[in-house]
Amino acid sequence: MIIMGIDPGLAITGFGLVHFEQNHFQVIQYGVIRTESKQPLPDRLLQIHQGIQTLIKQYKPEAVAVEELFFNTNAKSALLVGQARGVVVVTAAAASLPVYEYTPLQVKQGIAGYGRAEKKQVQHMTKTLLNLKEIPRPDDAADALAIAVCHAHTGHFKQLFSV
Amino acid sequence: MIIMGIDPGLAITGFGLVHFEQNHFQVIQYGVIRTESKQPLPDRLLQIHQGIQTLIKQYKPEAVAVEELFFNTNAKSALLVGQARGVVVVTAAAASLPVYEYTPLQVKQGIAGYGRAEKKQVQHMTKTLLNLKEIPRPDDAADALAIAVCHAHTGHFKQLFSV
Repeated sequence: MIIMGIDPGLAITGFGLVHFEQNHFQVIQYGVIRTESKQPLPDRLLQIHQGIQTLIKQYKPEAVAVEELFFNTNAKSALLVGQARGVVVVTAAAASLPVYEYTPLQVKQGIAGYGRAEKKQVQHMTKTLLNLKEIPRPDDAADALAIAVCHAHTGHFKQLFSV
Repeated sequence: MIIMGIDPGLAITGFGLVHFEQNHFQVIQYGVIRTESKQPLPDRLLQIHQGIQTLIKQYKPEAVAVEELFFNTNAKSALLVGQARGVVVVTAAAASLPVYEYTPLQVKQGIAGYGRAEKKQVQHMTKTLLNLKEIPRPDDAADALAIAVCHAHTGHFKQLFSV
C-alpha cells in the first residue's frame, strides 16, 4: 500500500510518500510545500490544499498519516498551525482517504522502538528503513517520512478520533 | 452584492448570507453547521467543508467575511478552532472567493458604531439593520450575520493579510 505522511505547517508542510509491502519499504517521493509569509493567509492555505491535492492525484496514496500536534507555545502559533493542519486533514478526507494521527511519542516508538529516542536517531532509523543514502532534507520532509513509516509499523491503525 | 459571513468553530460554525445594495440589506439565509464531538476529526472537518461548499454553490456569494480569532484560552482550543477556521478559509479560497477578516472590535465598530458595544447591542443593531423580527438564533448565526454586515459597512475592505 502507498502511505502519505504529512507534517503540517503554515510556512512549511512536509510530505513523504512510501510504498509498503511485506515489510519492505520503497520511497516514492518526499519534499515540502512552502508558502510565503508575505502572502495573504487564504492564498497560503490554498497553496497547501492544492499541493496536497496534486500529490494525492499523482501518487494515489491509500492512507494519510498526520502528526498530532502539541503546543507548549502560545495560542497564536497553535491557531496558525491549526489552520494549516485543518486544510491538510480536510483535503485528504475530501479525497475519501482515511486519515490517521500519531503523537510524536508514537512516531518515535514506531520507528526507533522507544519513545525517548532523539530526533537524530529517528532520522537515522528512517533512512535505514527506507534504504536511503542520506537523511532526507529538510527536516519537515524527514518527519513526514517518519510518520508514514510509523503508520506502516503500527499494527492496529489508530484512527483520528481525538478532538 | 451577496456577502457570506462565517463564525468558524469545530462544533458549531455559524453562517449568514446577506444581499447588500445601495445601503439596503436583505437576509438570504442564516444558520449553523453542527458537528458531533463523537465523530472523528476528519469527518467533522469534511462536514464543515461540504457545508460551506454547498452554501457557496447555492447562494453564490461574491465575498466571504470571517471573524479573526483571538485566544486567551489554551493552545489546545486554539488548535481545534484553528483547524475549523482553516477549512472555512480554504473552502472559500478554493471557490475563488475573496476572503476578508475582521476582529471582534471591528465588527462591533462596524455595526454599533463603537468597539465597546455589548453583545446584546450588536445583536439588536444587526436585527434592526437586517429588518428581522427577532434576533437570529443561535448566537453563532447572529455573529455570522454581524460579520457580513460589518463587511458591507466597512468602506475599504481589509483583506486577510495577517499571519
